[in-house]
Amino acid sequence: SRRYTITLLPGDGIGPEVISVAKTALQLAGSLEGIEFGFKEMPMGGAALDLTGVPLPEETLSTAQQSDAVLLGAIGGYKWDNNEKHLKPETGLLQLRKGLKVFANLRPATVLPQLVEASTLKKEVAEGVDLMVVRELTGGIYFGQPRGFSTNDNDEEVGFNTEVYAAHEIDRIARIAFETARKRHGKLCSVDKANVLEASMLWRKRVTAIASEYPDIELSHMYVDNAAMQLVRNPKQFDTIVTNNIFGDILSDEASMITGSIGMLPSASLGESGPGLFEPIHGSAPDIAGQDKANPLATVLSAAMLLKYGLGEEKAAQRIEAAVLDALNKGLRTGDIHSAGYKLVGCKEMGEEVLKSI
Amino acid sequence: SRRYTITLLPGDGIGPEVISVAKTALQLAGSLEGIEFGFKEMPMGGAALDLTGVPLPEETLSTAQQSDAVLLGAIGGYKWDNNEKHLKPETGLLQLRKGLKVFANLRPATVLPQLVEASTLKKEVAEGVDLMVVRELTGGIYFGQPRGFSTNDNDEEVGFNTEVYAAHEIDRIARIAFETARKRHGKLCSVDKANVLEASMLWRKRVTAIASEYPDIELSHMYVDNAAMQLVRNPKQFDTIVTNNIFGDILSDEASMITGSIGMLPSASLGESGPGLFEPIHGSAPDIAGQDKANPLATVLSAAMLLKYGLGEEKAAQRIEAAVLDALNKGLRTGDIHSAGYKLVGCKEMGEEVLKSI
Ligand SMILES: CC(C)[C@H](C(=O)O)[C@@H](O)C(=O)O
Ligand SMILES: CC(C)[C@H](C(=O)O)[C@@H](O)C(=O)O
Repeated sequence: SRRYTITLLPGDGIGPEVISVAKTALQLAGSLEGIEFGFKEMPMGGAALDLTGVPLPEETLSTAQQSDAVLLGAIGGYKWDNNEKHLKPETGLLQLRKGLKVFANLRPATVLPQLVEASTLKKEVAEGVDLMVVRELTGGIYFGQPRGFSTNDNDEEVGFNTEVYAAHEIDRIARIAFETARKRHGKLCSVDKANVLEASMLWRKRVTAIASEYPDIELSHMYVDNAAMQLVRNPKQFDTIVTNNIFGDILSDEASMITGSIGMLPSASLGESGPGLFEPIHGSAPDIAGQDKANPLATVLSAAMLLKYGLGEEKAAQRIEAAVLDALNKGLRTGDIHSAGYKLVGCKEMGEEVLKSI
Repeated sequence: SRRYTITLLPGDGIGPEVISVAKTALQLAGSLEGIEFGFKEMPMGGAALDLTGVPLPEETLSTAQQSDAVLLGAIGGYKWDNNEKHLKPETGLLQLRKGLKVFANLRPATVLPQLVEASTLKKEVAEGVDLMVVRELTGGIYFGQPRGFSTNDNDEEVGFNTEVYAAHEIDRIARIAFETARKRHGKLCSVDKANVLEASMLWRKRVTAIASEYPDIELSHMYVDNAAMQLVRNPKQFDTIVTNNIFGDILSDEASMITGSIGMLPSASLGESGPGLFEPIHGSAPDIAGQDKANPLATVLSAAMLLKYGLGEEKAAQRIEAAVLDALNKGLRTGDIHSAGYKLVGCKEMGEEVLKSI
């Protein structure tokens, strides 16, 4: 039987609850497909700050690096919001992404027929939305140097960051995006601000150059402000979107909210080689932490992405995906996606139902 | 009678059509309020490129600087899309903003009861939306130095830009935003990415400091990715939003699309002193240019903002605003906001109807 080591990073807030459900889903789906998992649970985010004084302890990073895949719950909370930058939970997440070299963040936004009512968009606009944002994750303004604070000639305080991309950083994310589009519906929209920013002009130039390797993919370009509009006007026009780190942060969150069910959405972050990082796109939701109210499905679906993109275990992934649809079809809903006529359940009960269906 | 000089910049695409309507509206509303206008029409954008080889001729800028207010139609078109940066119509617009020192861009997004159906959002989510985005317009990554292209150690091409804010740039836009919130519903939401970017950390710090001058205004902070979500989830939670140049570009366009009627939305760009710049938020729409299909109301409402914010002529502004509502109440609709049961009209007919109502 195949054996994999998975690093679990429960993190903060509802993180531990949803990770615990996803772990059992992995175990069960794995055992039915002849896969054995060794799990290593490590502290990260606010939990790590409280325990060790840093948001990403060295041991957590090295354990993650040595495993076959990493599953993260969520990080952050009011308690650490006013920490200095190097002591923020978010900084730990950025260090983890950089440490694992996962430069490609895949964020699907799918409106399931079962949940079309959850969207704030009109039914005819929301139904059938099925898009994927491919976000560059280890470059751009998130990591660009120089950055920091200084004083200008008028003795005023100044804050600055650098948006910067080198050709190879664009080329490799473009290739992932073209490959992703090929597995989907063959359409790729590259989003930039090439009418203003030099970094975007290079982005557009390189994406256009890489396109010659993918003659079967239909490539278009869109400015980021227009993309933010088009996602609201007609999200169905998009298949695969590729964009830089900061635009991807904004647009993938906007796209996810268009589905109306961010408690359902997973993500995968991949590098050239080495373990991928898989996490729900929702946050740590400190308000409902520990109350058995969280929706575990985004993390369960992240576990499915882990199987598919991280380990190449398609069958086990499909088992989990089917089980999630099953639980929805049975009418079970956590609070975030609940509406009249459906059965309101907690995190655990939803988890048990998914396990039954696996 | 009061006399003002207005620079008209029709620009490209549908620009000339909509400017011509707005000009007559200004003349009529003015004459009824004892205001006389001297208009100077100057080339700008693609039109200026074709005529003079640059997107913002010196004479256009100096005429604009010497006038009491500037009304712009729209710029850009396929023809100039692949121009080098310094020869893009957009570059002319950025030079104009910088040349007029209009650092505060006010962009209202209002869902009129008459047009609530135009939104792709469900009626209960869209109705009553009335928010104002105050966008910093002459700083940040749009203008930050250094910027450009270089080669790295691996002999690869690199593109880079600088996101940079000095304290006084944040302070002055914050004050405009607090003043704006005071005239509205007393709530200000400052949007940044202070969990990642130093420029945003300074932004949050300065906005928080300026807040002490406005104890009557309720200030909150939100990360830009969350703001992009919240605009879709529940846009009514917002009154006034203040944010930097690039985030404002994205979020104000998203907010405008939430209204479903971007052909209706005006904007005002203001400096410490000197003429303001007023323009519709829609683009030059080359596809429908010259076909009498454009919606002139965004430009007409920009003329109203010119009267109100640019010249302090509240009464004349109100005449125009009321006339626009009148035309809508009579059931007139241009193609962009047309639906069954309403009278489809062209740009000119809509303009004539507005004139009648003034
Ligand atoms: C928490 C934050 C640093 C992070 C980001 O901006 O990348 C988050 O918003 C995300 O999208 O994963
Ligand atoms: C045309 C472009 C340079 C401009 C901007 O990005 O500011 C436009 O999108 C706007 O919002 O006015």
